[in-house]
Amino acid sequence: MYRSHSCGELRASHINTKVTLAGWVQKSRDKGFMVWVDLRDRYGITQLIFDEERTPKDIIDKAKSLGREFVVQVKGTVIERESKNDKMATGAVEVLVSDLQILNESKLPPFTIEDKTDGGEDIRMKYRYLDIRRNPVKDSLIFRHKVTMEVRKYLSEQEFIEVETPYLIKSTPEGARDFVVPSRMNEGQFYALPQSPQTFKQLLMVGGMDKYFQIVKCFRDEDLRADRQPEFTQIDCEMAFVTQEDILNIFEGLTRHLLKEIDGVEVDKFPRMLFDDAMRLYGNDKPDIRFGMEFGELNAVTQHKDFKVFNDAELVIGIAVPGGNAYTRKEIDNIITWVKRPQVGALGMIYCRVNEDGSFKSSVDKFYDQEDLAKWVEVTGAKPGDLVCVLSGETSKVRAQMSALRMELAERLGLRDPKVFAPLWVIDFPLLELDEETGHYQAMHHPFTSPKPGQLELLDSKPGEVKANAYDLVLNGNEIGGGSIRIHDKETQATMLKHLGFSEEEAKAQFGFLMDAFEYGAPPHGGLAFGLDRLVAILGGQETIRDFIAFPKNNSGRDVMIDAPAFIDDEQLQELSLKLDIQE
Amino acid sequence: MYRSHSCGELRASHINTKVTLAGWVQKSRDKGFMVWVDLRDRYGITQLIFDEERTPKDIIDKAKSLGREFVVQVKGTVIERESKNDKMATGAVEVLVSDLQILNESKLPPFTIEDKTDGGEDIRMKYRYLDIRRNPVKDSLIFRHKVTMEVRKYLSEQEFIEVETPYLIKSTPEGARDFVVPSRMNEGQFYALPQSPQTFKQLLMVGGMDKYFQIVKCFRDEDLRADRQPEFTQIDCEMAFVTQEDILNIFEGLTRHLLKEIDGVEVDKFPRMLFDDAMRLYGNDKPDIRFGMEFGELNAVTQHKDFKVFNDAELVIGIAVPGGNAYTRKEIDNIITWVKRPQVGALGMIYCRVNEDGSFKSSVDKFYDQEDLAKWVEVTGAKPGDLVCVLSGETSKVRAQMSALRMELAERLGLRDPKVFAPLWVIDFPLLELDEETGHYQAMHHPFTSPKPGQLELLDSKPGEVKANAYDLVLNGNEIGGGSIRIHDKETQATMLKHLGFSEEEAKAQFGFLMDAFEYGAPPHGGLAFGLDRLVAILGGQETIRDFIAFPKNNSGRDVMIDAPAFIDDEQLQELSLKLDIQE
Repeated sequence: MYRSHSCGELRASHINTKVTLAGWVQKSRDKGFMVWVDLRDRYGITQLIFDEERTPKDIIDKAKSLGREFVVQVKGTVIERESKNDKMATGAVEVLVSDLQILNESKLPPFTIEDKTDGGEDIRMKYRYLDIRRNPVKDSLIFRHKVTMEVRKYLSEQEFIEVETPYLIKSTPEGARDFVVPSRMNEGQFYALPQSPQTFKQLLMVGGMDKYFQIVKCFRDEDLRADRQPEFTQIDCEMAFVTQEDILNIFEGLTRHLLKEIDGVEVDKFPRMLFDDAMRLYGNDKPDIRFGMEFGELNAVTQHKDFKVFNDAELVIGIAVPGGNAYTRKEIDNIITWVKRPQVGALGMIYCRVNEDGSFKSSVDKFYDQEDLAKWVEVTGAKPGDLVCVLSGETSKVRAQMSALRMELAERLGLRDPKVFAPLWVIDFPLLELDEETGHYQAMHHPFTSPKPGQLELLDSKPGEVKANAYDLVLNGNEIGGGSIRIHDKETQATMLKHLGFSEEEAKAQFGFLMDAFEYGAPPHGGLAFGLDRLVAILGGQETIRDFIAFPKNNSGRDVMIDAPAFIDDEQLQELSLKLDIQE
Repeated sequence: MYRSHSCGELRASHINTKVTLAGWVQKSRDKGFMVWVDLRDRYGITQLIFDEERTPKDIIDKAKSLGREFVVQVKGTVIERESKNDKMATGAVEVLVSDLQILNESKLPPFTIEDKTDGGEDIRMKYRYLDIRRNPVKDSLIFRHKVTMEVRKYLSEQEFIEVETPYLIKSTPEGARDFVVPSRMNEGQFYALPQSPQTFKQLLMVGGMDKYFQIVKCFRDEDLRADRQPEFTQIDCEMAFVTQEDILNIFEGLTRHLLKEIDGVEVDKFPRMLFDDAMRLYGNDKPDIRFGMEFGELNAVTQHKDFKVFNDAELVIGIAVPGGNAYTRKEIDNIITWVKRPQVGALGMIYCRVNEDGSFKSSVDKFYDQEDLAKWVEVTGAKPGDLVCVLSGETSKVRAQMSALRMELAERLGLRDPKVFAPLWVIDFPLLELDEETGHYQAMHHPFTSPKPGQLELLDSKPGEVKANAYDLVLNGNEIGGGSIRIHDKETQATMLKHLGFSEEEAKAQFGFLMDAFEYGAPPHGGLAFGLDRLVAILGGQETIRDFIAFPKNNSGRDVMIDAPAFIDDEQLQELSLKLDIQE
């Protein structure tokens, strides 16, 4: 061992102990006759002291030559610090150095290794190994480890078995493109990397494995948006002989366990909300319920006057912004500008101030009198001092716009406190959703999700109305998990695939093995998968996932540190029976 | 929940309890007025009883219709069993059934779901989901889960952090071909799947992460041999500020912990053997030391007579086979035939019987007298009643042949008891090995392994003699882990890559990021990786790894259950800017 103690370990009780430490030079101060060095490792920082009277001359000279991020080993004695530092765990002591070895030198790092660094995102990603030395990243990775250990401990105690499923599999269409892997030994053929272990976990249920989980990498070749990674990690779970109720209870238990063990927060039984209600009250399927501002539908109380905008609208929605009457005209204009941004896309916003004296002042006073506005206020639940914001238009669009506005205003009002945790089950998702581009219905969750009992017949007549045994777990406005009760008989699965546009041959080629398996005693089963990257970030009180991933890729799917992907040799292509086919 | 208890849970203490069970029909016996069904789930088997006097007629009729592997749910009462079965955990009771639901039917499975099945390897792989229902496979997967939980627990308690490294990386030449993944967003470029997370774990050390581990899938596109999988799992570990001694101690601790917790076996401090000694005494670098039969080198005591075969040989080796003098002439001929098989490749075998009376009888008595043979016996340590077997030839070949013979004879003698565990560190591996095909030296472990201190200078003059800080952990004749102390400075790494035949440009293109990282304060570091599949198999007392992998691939790298790899659409190829280039 290069050290007897870590740099985070020494306390007053260690005074007079001889120690050996190793680590990185965080900073040094040279007063001529005395040199202080802050020595850092994963566990903390310890102050080293070298002085003319007590340290050999060659050692003090060497100490003066140290640059930031040099790697050193020191031997010395723990002594009491003259000016104690209460903010450091080791602040009561320092180490009087008797020997110093430089284990490795360091060039000046391209950004400071501090909690608040001067390095931008790009440079930090290129030198990720230096970025990881910073507490915010290092602590996030350690935090992630703690979360996964707790997940495994909890599930294992519940008799779940972690089973590794293969990475080199066959294409399973789940809404995104597969990454593929050419097979050298099977000429012209390709493996696919899993978008999820979905079919394998179902086969494990057919195999009697009964309670399965796996913390597993999954892959999607999608055009990347901010905070999306081509490879991501799931806590993938499946159970046999269970109903939806059982699954919600088990994974509510897991989530509650994590909130308690990781965040020290005790949470009541998670509320449940129908998908339809979530859309009606919050305009999306993952409502942030840390705060109110529920939608009030105002059609009935707005469409009886001459205001054409509302009269022509499919849906008119209002929300009550707490204390919003305090906004100046300029602030309200700013909000209106915000909803008209292309990313939100509203054409405008109507508002109504709710004065403290109980009177109202709206931007459409010439159409609506005090009695009308009183109804808006009633429907939205606004209180004196609030502001009612109203948007209108086509149902799906206006809901999305109002949802975005609600989140933005909550952010501005400080209502999205990362230390508050508001979990929520959203249940009874539709089985299918209309693909706007193709005009066809596609599986909302995936093709293996079972419709609610008795609703299979509606598939032909009213496909959009069929509800599924599908559910999402939402935490603070983020979907952290989702799942469903699966189809477990061949006939229903075949019907489902037919409705999703698979020919019989395609269905057999892609899912024949699963449908065959259903003929050999498949038990009823269902499951859920958590998105680990996001779950960890939210438990850690963060919005972005990058600090919780050791080596993330950028928005072009590149690892800028190792410079991947890269071109490969012609020889390697030849072995794989491939040619590049690049359009000039 | 479809059940109140599992099928492995009911005991005499449950008598008179009303229960609901669900599971698979293992078998049924129909005596007309009475039907017994063995109901199976992951946890065990419970006997169900239906009888004319106590069970409703429609239920008993339904019971008579059950086929093997039907999935059923039953309600009933636990009663005392008339003829108890001591061999079953639930053998004291049975369940008198009052209600029966068929949850799913089953076609007749293509092989019996029994510990000893009638199904061959191929059919079991095609229907792996049925194979997993069998105890040997199911129990192996559960056993694997237990091992990985213990590994994580132990390492986590030692302050190791599990960090996920990326799967979509860049080619890292480690002796095998990479699987590659075409990137759609970066035209003409490819990711590679990791053969190991080697460079990333080293970057984590540079990043100060200090104690890292990961249970992680790795990928090698090799021509498969029996028991080799294109994707396999490693327990990958790395530490900073450590010497070889520290690493051996930590991972010896882990292995001892596993042997104790998993197998209930306490093992002494692991012996250590130099690579050179392993080759000299056992003819290979992973000796099985559960038994003796060490090699005796006989050149000095055989090359002074007229026996040309020995006189021409670079090396003459003998081993003493315990009790081997009891072999008949026919048995010895059988051994000689065995060593002449092309897989072993010896040209013949000389032997010497050691009679109980102290006299010797060899197959070359016309060249060697009793005094000569006494020396053979002395060198090989043979005792009265033993047989000395002697092979000769070129050093590397004869060692490999004798090693094979030693293992074969130990197998025949029952000396390879899977319940006995004999771990061993083999240390001081050579840094380089000669590639017979190319005539060039290549890295024996990988290009990041550091030479022993002071030996770097030998690289030019005597490359084959340079020893590395590299070590393997051997268990019962299998390499279960291996690792090294790494190079952590740019200059040494550059020198090493130059000697391995990388031009400066190639070195920079492939490992520039790592060598750059070494310039920013890289600490001394090293590590080790266990092959999890094999480790689990050996801890489980098995020779083959397939039962410990849920969905293994066959020797052509195919998953015969899902039928992967497979051809993909032209459209998909086009998106990836690829064309097939198949030679007619």
